[in-house]
This record gives sequence, structure tokens and C-alpha cells, in this order.
Amino acid sequence: MRDYTAILSMHCPDRPGLVAGLTGIIHEAGGNILHLDQWVNHEENMFFMRVEWDMTGFAIPRGELDGWFESRFGSRHGVSYTLHLSDERPRMAIFVSKMPHCLYDMLARQAAGEWRVDIPLIVSNHPDLEQVARRFGVEFRCLPVTPDSKAGQEEAVLALLAGYGIDMVVLARYMQVLSDDFIQRYPHPVVNIHHSFLPAFMGARPYHAAHARGVKLIGATSHFVTAALDEGPIIEQDVVQITHKDTVDRLVRKGQDLEKIVLSRAVSKILDHRVLAYGNRTVVFE
Amino acid sequence: MRDYTAILSMHCPDRPGLVAGLTGIIHEAGGNILHLDQWVNHEENMFFMRVEWDMTGFAIPRGELDGWFESRFGSRHGVSYTLHLSDERPRMAIFVSKMPHCLYDMLARQAAGEWRVDIPLIVSNHPDLEQVARRFGVEFRCLPVTPDSKAGQEEAVLALLAGYGIDMVVLARYMQVLSDDFIQRYPHPVVNIHHSFLPAFMGARPYHAAHARGVKLIGATSHFVTAALDEGPIIEQDVVQITHKDTVDRLVRKGQDLEKIVLSRAVSKILDHRVLAYGNRTVVFE
Amino acid sequence: MRDYTAILSMHCPDRPGLVAGLTGIIHEAGGNILHLDQWVNHEENMFFMRVEWDMTGFAIPRGELDGWFESRFGSRHGVSYTLHLSDERPRMAIFVSKMPHCLYDMLARQAAGEWRVDIPLIVSNHPDLEQVARRFGVEFRCLPVTPDSKAGQEEAVLALLAGYGIDMVVLARYMQVLSDDFIQRYPHPVVNIHHSFLPAFMGARPYHAAHARGVKLIGATSHFVTAALDEGPIIEQDVVQITHKDTVDRLVRKGQDLEKIVLSRAVSKILDHRVLAYGNRTVVFE
Amino acid sequence: MRDYTAILSMHCPDRPGLVAGLTGIIHEAGGNILHLDQWVNHEENMFFMRVEWDMTGFAIPRGELDGWFESRFGSRHGVSYTLHLSDERPRMAIFVSKMPHCLYDMLARQAAGEWRVDIPLIVSNHPDLEQVARRFGVEFRCLPVTPDSKAGQEEAVLALLAGYGIDMVVLARYMQVLSDDFIQRYPHPVVNIHHSFLPAFMGARPYHAAHARGVKLIGATSHFVTAALDEGPIIEQDVVQITHKDTVDRLVRKGQDLEKIVLSRAVSKILDHRVLAYGNRTVVFE
Repeated sequence: MRDYTAILSMHCPDRPGLVAGLTGIIHEAGGNILHLDQWVNHEENMFFMRVEWDMTGFAIPRGELDGWFESRFGSRHGVSYTLHLSDERPRMAIFVSKMPHCLYDMLARQAAGEWRVDIPLIVSNHPDLEQVARRFGVEFRCLPVTPDSKAGQEEAVLALLAGYGIDMVVLARYMQVLSDDFIQRYPHPVVNIHHSFLPAFMGARPYHAAHARGVKLIGATSHFVTAALDEGPIIEQDVVQITHKDTVDRLVRKGQDLEKIVLSRAVSKILDHRVLAYGNRTVVFE
Repeated sequence: MRDYTAILSMHCPDRPGLVAGLTGIIHEAGGNILHLDQWVNHEENMFFMRVEWDMTGFAIPRGELDGWFESRFGSRHGVSYTLHLSDERPRMAIFVSKMPHCLYDMLARQAAGEWRVDIPLIVSNHPDLEQVARRFGVEFRCLPVTPDSKAGQEEAVLALLAGYGIDMVVLARYMQVLSDDFIQRYPHPVVNIHHSFLPAFMGARPYHAAHARGVKLIGATSHFVTAALDEGPIIEQDVVQITHKDTVDRLVRKGQDLEKIVLSRAVSKILDHRVLAYGNRTVVFE
Repeated sequence: MRDYTAILSMHCPDRPGLVAGLTGIIHEAGGNILHLDQWVNHEENMFFMRVEWDMTGFAIPRGELDGWFESRFGSRHGVSYTLHLSDERPRMAIFVSKMPHCLYDMLARQAAGEWRVDIPLIVSNHPDLEQVARRFGVEFRCLPVTPDSKAGQEEAVLALLAGYGIDMVVLARYMQVLSDDFIQRYPHPVVNIHHSFLPAFMGARPYHAAHARGVKLIGATSHFVTAALDEGPIIEQDVVQITHKDTVDRLVRKGQDLEKIVLSRAVSKILDHRVLAYGNRTVVFE
Repeated sequence: MRDYTAILSMHCPDRPGLVAGLTGIIHEAGGNILHLDQWVNHEENMFFMRVEWDMTGFAIPRGELDGWFESRFGSRHGVSYTLHLSDERPRMAIFVSKMPHCLYDMLARQAAGEWRVDIPLIVSNHPDLEQVARRFGVEFRCLPVTPDSKAGQEEAVLALLAGYGIDMVVLARYMQVLSDDFIQRYPHPVVNIHHSFLPAFMGARPYHAAHARGVKLIGATSHFVTAALDEGPIIEQDVVQITHKDTVDRLVRKGQDLEKIVLSRAVSKILDHRVLAYGNRTVVFE
């Protein structure tokens, strides 16, 4: 008996009968649908769906799911999709520099069993957080970056990611911009946390900029990393009210709580296969 | 017997003994302090205070308060201040174009007695909202603007403001940019509501821009109007979470609730003399 | 040509094929589905759906929609449902006592065209708000209540509601408890705003109770009215942070903004047919 | 040279001249005031102040501060106060049961240097979290509780707290109610996190109760522990919006993020000496 579920996330051009067609073939193969969320972007005539079904008694073996879906539904409707089983454990690497708050929050969630993921690798351009990695028994690799060594460092990082079989990279206040070349060569999602409510305060030192502008709230934004800095599809954002009393130091402190919660919420949703990126936006099923 | 209070809002360079000095002269004249908020900006060595005291039995008559304060405290410390009595009723004009939600919210608060203010005048560049003004018995003046007529229109508006004795202008979704000349010639505060969390999405059509960027929250910002568009000192900001399901139309609708609440909160605080602008920032005492 | 939509909100015991079955009969009759939200409560095995389709070219005339739905789908699945057309204008009555903030907010939304609803009647147990009704040209009926006259007053109110053809009652800070008898005899929804985050501070004077308890946030709750006071299905809730500085008077003032926004959000969702009550809970489609 | 500050938190009956008097004696002794917050509860005629000054060049040695304050100010005004130096490191014990999220959050903050505190001891009634303690090198003491052994267990816990010189206890989802006897005998603050927006859902299983009631938001409350369960002075509260889709399991998951942030915010403010409890309420200076 199989006590796991299948989770399909997909989008394709909208046309009549897509929900009926897909739920039909799942029922036909003996799948009991547990959750179904669908949404149509009428401006772009695009259909999005996340459907999760019980694999107990499902007629299609796990190794043949992709073929089944493609032949019965995907290829005829021009579908982009991912299909995951709930008992898979993706392998995540975390990139850090000197600030530990996001790293601790993620390692604690993984260690506590809150997330179904393995975290075999932490990469940093500074040695400062090695002890944090050690507390949780995670391999820590320090690869410093200088303007001259950047290309070589990224080459080494890509080799590490391949060697560890990493499915997903999270930049947890990694204070380096990944090159276009890196982004194009690494085939899996890269998630970042930026310490402002984007698109306000892109780039460096957003808390200083927020303080100088005199805003009454500060924010944090988690987004997929693309070639354009701080401009990838946004997954999650939140803000907190501040006052004139808040110095830059206090903004940093208030902001850290926001950063770690916003980043971890984004990662949670990705691990639940609730996030679909298309164009420069995301669909996030709740 | 006088059942009103005096409210002093001030700032000056910080030095030891300012609180003691000021509270001392108030007590000496028989004033019972009801509220005192003070804050020091240590980065700029600037002292801010709002103090409210009961005028019952106060030794200084209302007409001599400024002179008393200047001679006993203000002039020796280089103080910038305002001094108001709680029984004054400032005179506010509201500028609108076609959207009524902020206008209704403000007129209702005034009519309900929530705000101690008179609103004798509504100015618009379109005739659409005349009936709203009429419901509340407020004079409505329609002064259309074209690129050619802008200077003349502003001249006429300034004359109206002078004629009605207006102490404060609120731009309640007035879809015209006031010229530098207007701002410099009108000697009282002008408050605006911008429909984004500034500094994100400055300028026109922020909901369209927010939708295109794929943000997960939209905001509204109330600020004092200065010569630089959307860059004056921020008084109040707030945001609301949105999702991929929200079309531009739905953003507009969700945003309107935010705009009216943020603008009215800002105006409430100004009417309570809780807002001090200095440089490009505000100190807002709660 | 018909430029309106049909909106079906329904729930029934879950079974395989409900989405496929329903979307199938809509497509068959020429309906283009614009929005479809469905959700299954797996704990109670209950299926909920809201579906909206374009009526242009739909084969079933408006007068026969219920019969069509019942015969083709509803009766065989034991469905509870409502089916509305977007060009209908429900008729709403607002009940008030002395506080105008919620009343103003609702009348302004209706007058501004934000809500597709008629508001032909305001009922009050006090004369205070007659002028507010008059500003918006709405009939105002004052029916005072004393312990002795309550049964008679409710009788008169029910007759008024019938006479005006009222489809929905909103209690906008109406400071009277409707009797069980009234609730059972009035066949349409009654919506209330309670000025606390229920179930905290049920009953009278919640701001006083909140102040006495020293909470750090205050709330407002909009709910359907049932026989049990403050215990009906909750539609919408929100809170605002407060501090030790907030006196009861300031809580009242901060709370009023919350009350009117929470109540109007709830009414907006009901007018959009997004709210399904079942048991003591609501399903609210976004 | 001393590079630390003194922080005085106090309250006493209000009378004229308190700010002037206190700032006067601090200036007289050479103290430069960095922060001063004061607030008067006019309903109860009670004066509250937090003042922080630079100890560089201050005339009174650290060991004589209490005597100086008492003799010059405290005793004549009936002041209740605490006086701390910023270079002190209080000693905190954390009590847990089986859930690690709050514990991890606090240990990470301490390890990262975000909090100036020592955490030498973790007490639990279950062995489950021993490994979490070990990751951070903190002593873990498991003292199981049964109805029969409760008095003895508390005796042992009190002895441990005394032995480790613990200044402050934090209940980080400790699923035992401390007896009145314990509360009365332990002379330092005990802080709890309750997983609801109190006073709603007091007692056990608040997420189940919230789900059954159908609320649209869930909350968390951090408060000082007093003899009355869940009724001590509230320090910090926050909520998060939920929907009908949220099962109890999802409420638990969403709530955990809230619990840890609310608890850690409360502890941060206590460590900064910003929280004054009086009666059943708190004054929290920002």
C-alpha cells in the first residue's frame, strides 16, 4: 500500500473542459483527489492548476507518471508542469555570508521536521557561520569571492551543487550577486530574500535608504533569482510598521525577523509545490 | 473658566535641560501638563517635543501665548514651533478629481464630529463630484485644467484659498500635479495621498505598475506635498496583501479602502498637532 | 445580447466527478466559465463551489435557470445552492442607533457605485441619524424600543422589511439584540458588526473590557446573526495594534475605522456572492 | 572609561515636576541622557518613565546607584523602579515540553549575539528536546511531571533555578501549569507564550477551539505568568489571517511562526528593560 500523494502543478492556454478532462483521467486511474486549486488568468487566457491526489490504489506506477500525464493530457494541451510525489525529499543548499538569522531559522525548521527536505550543504563567501553549520551537522564550504576570482568561485560552486545533487538553492542573505552565467547554467530554482518591499529600495543598503527616505514601514521580499538583480518573480512579501524613533540599527533588527519569516514562508510554499512562476510573476496556491 | 488645552509642537538643537526648562515654565504659569512626548534624534542632535496642558487657570492669556513662549524659551534655544489651542477650528479645503471615496470619508468624519475642523470648500478640475459636495452642503468649485490654462487655474485656486481663509489643503485623489510656484506661494500644509507604498511606484498608474511587477502587497502613502513629486515627507503608510488572482480592477478596489483610511489617519494626526515635518521626514507622536 | 453573468454558490456531499459534471453541463449549454473556485472540506466530506459564467449565448433563459440546475445537477447530488445573475440589484436595509461611521461608509459606497445594491430603508431605534439618511435621500424610520415595546417594535420592523422588499439586513452598530423570533421570521441574511475580535469580549462594552484586560490589539468581527448573540458564522475579522497609551476613548476612535472597513468588506463579499454559511462557519471565496 | 549605560524604569503617583526633578539629578551627576520616554496614566494619576543615560564620566559608581537614586528621588516620590546597567548579562532559563520552534528561535538569537543574555539551563517535563539543547551546548534537565509528583517536581525546579542563579524564566510552549506556590516562591519574572489572541481561547487546545468557532484570524499572546492561568499582564500580541481552507494542522503550522516571533519580541523588550508591569497591565516603551 502506498501512503503518499501526487502533486501536479501546471499551466497551459485556457480552453473549455480542462478541469473536467484532467479530473476525469485521474479518477479513471483510481486517484482520489484531495486538493484542487485552479485559476484562469483571463487577461492572458492562461489556465493554472494544482491538484493533489492519493496514490493508494492508483493504477499508474510512480515511474510512469510523467509518461501517463504527457500522453493523456499534457501534450495535447501544451502544458508546462511539474509532478512530484509527497515522499520525495528534495536536496537544498543554503548560501550565506555573515548574518545567521535566516540560516538558523531554516536549519531549525528542517531539524524539527517542519520541512520535508534535506540540507546537505551550506556555501559561504566568508568563514563566519561555520559554527552554525556545525551545530546542525551540515557540511560548510567557504569559497571567498574577489572581483578577480568571481568566475572561478562560481565554477567551483556549480561543481559543488552538482556533486551534492542539489535541487534548490536558497540565498539566505548571501551578499554576492550571482552572475548571469551562473543563473543560466544552474538548472534548478534559486530563491533570494531581499530586505525591502521591492521594487522600493533595490540594490545595496535598503535599510539605510529606507531611513533616509523616512518611510513608515519596512519590508522584505522573497523572489526567484533571474539575471536581472532584484527583479525576479516575487513569491512572498511582508512589511512591519516603523516610527521616526527607529534608527538604522533598529530597522536592521526589526527587519531581520521579517526577513527570516518571509524567506521561510516562501521556501515552505515551494516545498509544498504551491508556487508556479510564469513570465515575471508567480501564482501561489494557498 | 477655560475648558480648552494648549498644544505645543517644537524642535530645536538638543542640549541638557530642555524638558526640565519647558515643563518648569508651564508649571510656573499654572499649567497642568496632560501629555508630554519628547524624542531626541541623536544622529542629528535634534530635540522634538509635543506637550499639551490644561489652560484652566493658566496665567498667560491666549493672545499672549506666543510672546510668552518665545521670550521665556523659544528664542534662547532656537526653537521652531507651532502653538495651538484645542478650541480652534482650522479651515480645510479638499481637492478632488473624479473618485469620491476619500472625499466621502473625510466629509463623513467632519459631519459626524469626529474631526474638529471646518470644510468650507471643495476644488475640482472635473464637475463629477459636485453632487457629493452638495449632499454635505459644501461649496464646490470646478476649475478645469488644460496644459495651457494651468497657470491661470492655479492663480484662481490660490485666490479661492485666500478668500475662504483655508489653513490646510488635502489632495484627495486630485489628479493634477501642483506646480512649484503654487507650493511656494501657498503658505500652509498641503497633504496628498499616493496610491502606492512609496518610494515604489512613483508617478502615474501605480496599480498597473504593481500588477505588472507581480508584487504581493499594495500600499498607500500620505505625505506632505513639496516641489518634488511624490517625494515629500511621509506621514502615514499602510499595505494590504494581494494575490495573483487580483486583476488591476481588484487592486483599484482594494486600494481605495487603504487610500481613504491612510489619508484620514494622516489628517487626523495633523489635526491633533501630532505631526512635525523636518527635512524630508516626519516625527509623528502617538 | 446579454452582458451579464450567472453566479452559482453551492455545497453538497463530496463525491468524485462533481467539478467535471457541473462544468460539463455549463459548457453544454454554451456557458463560458469566467471564475471557478472549489474547495473540499475533507473532515466533513463536503464539497463547496462558486462558479461564474458568461450568459451571452447561454441556451437556458434566465427564468429557467433554477429548474435547469436542479434537474441536471442539484437534485441528484443533494445540493444547497444560490444562483444569481449579475444584473440583479438586491435591496438592503441598514439598522442603526446613534453612531454614524458605518452608515456613512455604506451609503457612500452605494452612492459611488462601488456596490450593486439598492438601499431604500434605514431603521433606527433613535432619531439621531435621520439627517445622515436625508443627505443620501434614503427613507429613515425611527422605531424606538423599550423592554415593553420590543415585541411590537419588531413586528413593525418586519412589516417594513416586507413592505420594502428587503433582501438583506445590515446591523451597522444597531444597539439592540434582535429576538429569536425576529431571526426566525425574517427569511433573509442579517449581518452584524461586533466591535471586538470574537470570541473575545462578547456582549456589551468590548472596548472597556479590552482596556481593562490590557490587550495589545483590538478587533472587529462581522458575522451573520443567529439566535445566539455574537455567535453566528464569522465572515470577516481584523485587528489593529494598540498601546498602553490608548485610553478607552482612543480605542473607540481607532476601533471605528476598523468596524466600518470590516463590515463593508463583509457586505462586499456577500454582494459578490462569495460567502457560503454552513453550520457555524463560513466559506469565503476570494 | 565606562562605555555602558544605565537604564531606569519606574512608576510612581504623578505630580508636577517629576521629569524636571529626575533629569535634573542625572545631569547634576554628569549623566548624558540618551533616551527618555515618559507617560502619564491620567485615569489612575500614575507616572511612568524609562530613561537611559551614558555612564561615561557619571559621578556615582555602579555599586552606589540604587542608594543615590533612592535618596535623591525614589523615596520621596514613592517610586517603584528597576535600575540596570547595559553591560549586565541576565541569566535566563527556558522551559519546554515537546515543541522546538520557540526554543530554537531563542537559542539562535542568543547564539547570534542578538540578545545580551546567558541561557545556562533548559528545563523540560519530556526528554524530546534534549538534542536541541545539546546543539547549542546548554544544560538540559528533564523533570517529568505526574499529578502525584507535581509538587516535588516544582521543588526540584526551584532548586535548579536557584542553583543556576536564574533571573528570568521563559515558558516556550511548556505544557504544564505552574502552581500558585511556584509563582509565589520564584522571585523573578516568568514569561509565557499562549497560542491564541487572549482573552479568546484561554486554556487547552486553542487552535482546535479557533477552528471550531470558525474565526478568520488566529493569534499568539506573550504575558507574564501570575497565579491566574492565561490572565497575567500581556506584553505582546499578534495575529495572522486564516481562511476556511485552514485545517487544524495548518493552523498549528501558521501559529508556530506567530508564537515564536511574539514570544521573542516580548523577551527582547524585557531584556531592553522596556516593559513595566503594574496591576494586570503592562507599559511597553518603544
